[in-house]
Amino acid sequence: MTAEIITIGDELLIGQVINSNQAFIAERFNTVGIVTERMTTVGDSDVPVREAFAAAFARHDVVAVTGGLGPTHDDITKRLVCEFFGTDLVTDEGTLAHIKELAQRRNLPLIQSNLDQALVPRSCTVIPNRNGTAPGMLFERDGRYFAVMPGVPFEMKAMVDDWLLPFFAGRSDGLIVRHRTLKTTGIGESMLAKRIGDVSEFLGTDGSATLAFLPNPMGTKLRITVKHRDAAFVDASLARIESALRARAERYIYASDEQELEHVVGRLLNEQRRTLALAESCTGGFIAHRVTNVPGSSAYFLRGFVTYSDRAKTEDLGVPAELIARHGAVSAETAEAMAAGARRRSGADIALSCTGIAGPGGGSPEKPVGLCYIGFADAARTFALKFSFGDHRLRFKDRASQAALELLRRSLLRFDTLDG
Amino acid sequence: MTAEIITIGDELLIGQVINSNQAFIAERFNTVGIVTERMTTVGDSDVPVREAFAAAFARHDVVAVTGGLGPTHDDITKRLVCEFFGTDLVTDEGTLAHIKELAQRRNLPLIQSNLDQALVPRSCTVIPNRNGTAPGMLFERDGRYFAVMPGVPFEMKAMVDDWLLPFFAGRSDGLIVRHRTLKTTGIGESMLAKRIGDVSEFLGTDGSATLAFLPNPMGTKLRITVKHRDAAFVDASLARIESALRARAERYIYASDEQELEHVVGRLLNEQRRTLALAESCTGGFIAHRVTNVPGSSAYFLRGFVTYSDRAKTEDLGVPAELIARHGAVSAETAEAMAAGARRRSGADIALSCTGIAGPGGGSPEKPVGLCYIGFADAARTFALKFSFGDHRLRFKDRASQAALELLRRSLLRFDTLDG
Repeated sequence: MTAEIITIGDELLIGQVINSNQAFIAERFNTVGIVTERMTTVGDSDVPVREAFAAAFARHDVVAVTGGLGPTHDDITKRLVCEFFGTDLVTDEGTLAHIKELAQRRNLPLIQSNLDQALVPRSCTVIPNRNGTAPGMLFERDGRYFAVMPGVPFEMKAMVDDWLLPFFAGRSDGLIVRHRTLKTTGIGESMLAKRIGDVSEFLGTDGSATLAFLPNPMGTKLRITVKHRDAAFVDASLARIESALRARAERYIYASDEQELEHVVGRLLNEQRRTLALAESCTGGFIAHRVTNVPGSSAYFLRGFVTYSDRAKTEDLGVPAELIARHGAVSAETAEAMAAGARRRSGADIALSCTGIAGPGGGSPEKPVGLCYIGFADAARTFALKFSFGDHRLRFKDRASQAALELLRRSLLRFDTLDG
Repeated sequence: MTAEIITIGDELLIGQVINSNQAFIAERFNTVGIVTERMTTVGDSDVPVREAFAAAFARHDVVAVTGGLGPTHDDITKRLVCEFFGTDLVTDEGTLAHIKELAQRRNLPLIQSNLDQALVPRSCTVIPNRNGTAPGMLFERDGRYFAVMPGVPFEMKAMVDDWLLPFFAGRSDGLIVRHRTLKTTGIGESMLAKRIGDVSEFLGTDGSATLAFLPNPMGTKLRITVKHRDAAFVDASLARIESALRARAERYIYASDEQELEHVVGRLLNEQRRTLALAESCTGGFIAHRVTNVPGSSAYFLRGFVTYSDRAKTEDLGVPAELIARHGAVSAETAEAMAAGARRRSGADIALSCTGIAGPGGGSPEKPVGLCYIGFADAARTFALKFSFGDHRLRFKDRASQAALELLRRSLLRFDTLDG
């Protein structure tokens, strides 16, 4: 079955609210074989809502509408739904009882506008709203479905998960859609595409599988999508395509699906019972922040030094002042000395360091903005790698932290070479 | 002028990515008098994209399209735009030079798929993309406009702010919509609303001005919106309403519009020529990260210590081991000793510290998850404040960093009392 999601609300059209309802519904619909083909947002006014209803229900098997069901004057959805389906409002006793019970439980006065929410279109099936007073409603016409829900995310989400998905799970027409995402880093989108080569070699030619490249400052995600009526076929295809991608780009794939790089290195450090220290200059604590976003990271992360000044590098990490004077604070030599110093001071098994020019100021022809050295020290070796991360300060931090954690991942996995 | 925003991408239709581009463009369009009436999302396939282009350009003065401009096989937008406007691709020399320069600066190989991004439709005006290789393009037909930009948010945002808004600012048709946002922290939404009282007293009754409360973990934003055809009226209304809000809640307002708290304290530290050091435990480097997000922060930020282990607190900050043993690592005493130690070790004028239980584990009945102490030390005093920041690890870091920086702001502004 195909779907269109319609979100209604002036707050969306002025950009006051980022629309997260669409993504939620689309993701959930996917799990029961409903493929969203279009999303439309219109404001709280009659003509565009009417047009959107008609266009969507003509084109798709399922239409999901959110928004405009509250008790205030700008909530017009219920009236327009009645008009669209040629029906009128009747009191739903179950909803009325729920509204009274909710008011009592929350210690709220029962005013008329709340009681009016028990009025529902005569020809709909009520979708219960356990978290609020506005009920949802489902219409069916000739095997097609039109669902209307409030726009409040936590009310809508519970209605989708508790009621709408079980309802559709038994009715969808069998097309199964599954995704797998492989997350890469340390290679540009174009080079990755070149390495992977002709995708038709492993996607097959029956159109059931697609591959998307999704770049961002942390790396490029490869998203595999397989659509088919046979679940075993879908799983086999996903596995085959994942293998093909791994055969071509294994080195750069650090995680699958929603996992972040800090979780991957955290798991490796835990498994290998190794501890970590950090010495940061240009990233200003961002690597430590990412490492400590992982619950339980205190098991392996001992401490970090944010040595923003040269004096801090010398006093906290023991980087010789004359080394900084000779090579500069942004140099391979300083990065190495920072990592070695953090390791020595903390007693950690491994230390990473980072020194660079995040910009926008501070660059020179020899050392331009974006230049960055990542240092590494463990019992066996101390070295630094050189990078260039562009001239946007926050993107620079994203890229530098990702490169540092990726270097750690490769070292923990004992890659032959750690760069490139 | 009215607008439709079209976002293209399968990742949106499967719910993998929440669409933040629409809200950004709509909000920015508002500032130059362009009213967004519809938002449409379609996938990476020819028929729905074609239909969306035709329907939107027939209905609205401005169409803004994002997505599908990358170098890989699933990026179809450029081809379909050429088809829609009946034109072909030519190399844009300016874009080609930019791509070569960017590749050199980022130390990337120049492969054909990157060079191909310099191909643009013959009949468009190129919108430069300073943060990436895919140029934007603007078409004009009979006083209506069709703008196409990449879907990568930070590339698109710079193109809108640097190029598209100045372009449209001179061409829109009269209704002026301006917003001003006052950012508050350290007070809950309900208490803030109570303090501000009856908004009709200062908004006026002609409907031209509205006030929205926008709560988030960093605090509550107050957004004033004024719509009118007379620019002087709009500016006078904004100024009057801002004054009224400041009279009622000045203490809690730390910034206006897009400014972050780290920029505000950075400016104050610079003006007062004072230096800062940080000692973080539970926030794991996040406060240092925020402080160093400000360009030029090296002028006042000397260093940070991320003392995740007790041993690090003792060795790097000189917190006595017996003090930690007696009061616990999460205590007012430890927070004070951390701040004092960071100040002493760094020689900074002011030091902040933070120790707490970010969760999800590590809580106890006496010291539950969410408990946090923020320490402060300057030449005159050393003290700690107690907070409770909830049980969501990342929200905890947001709130704790905000409370620490707000404490710094109040101390730099010499508030009589620093808490509450």
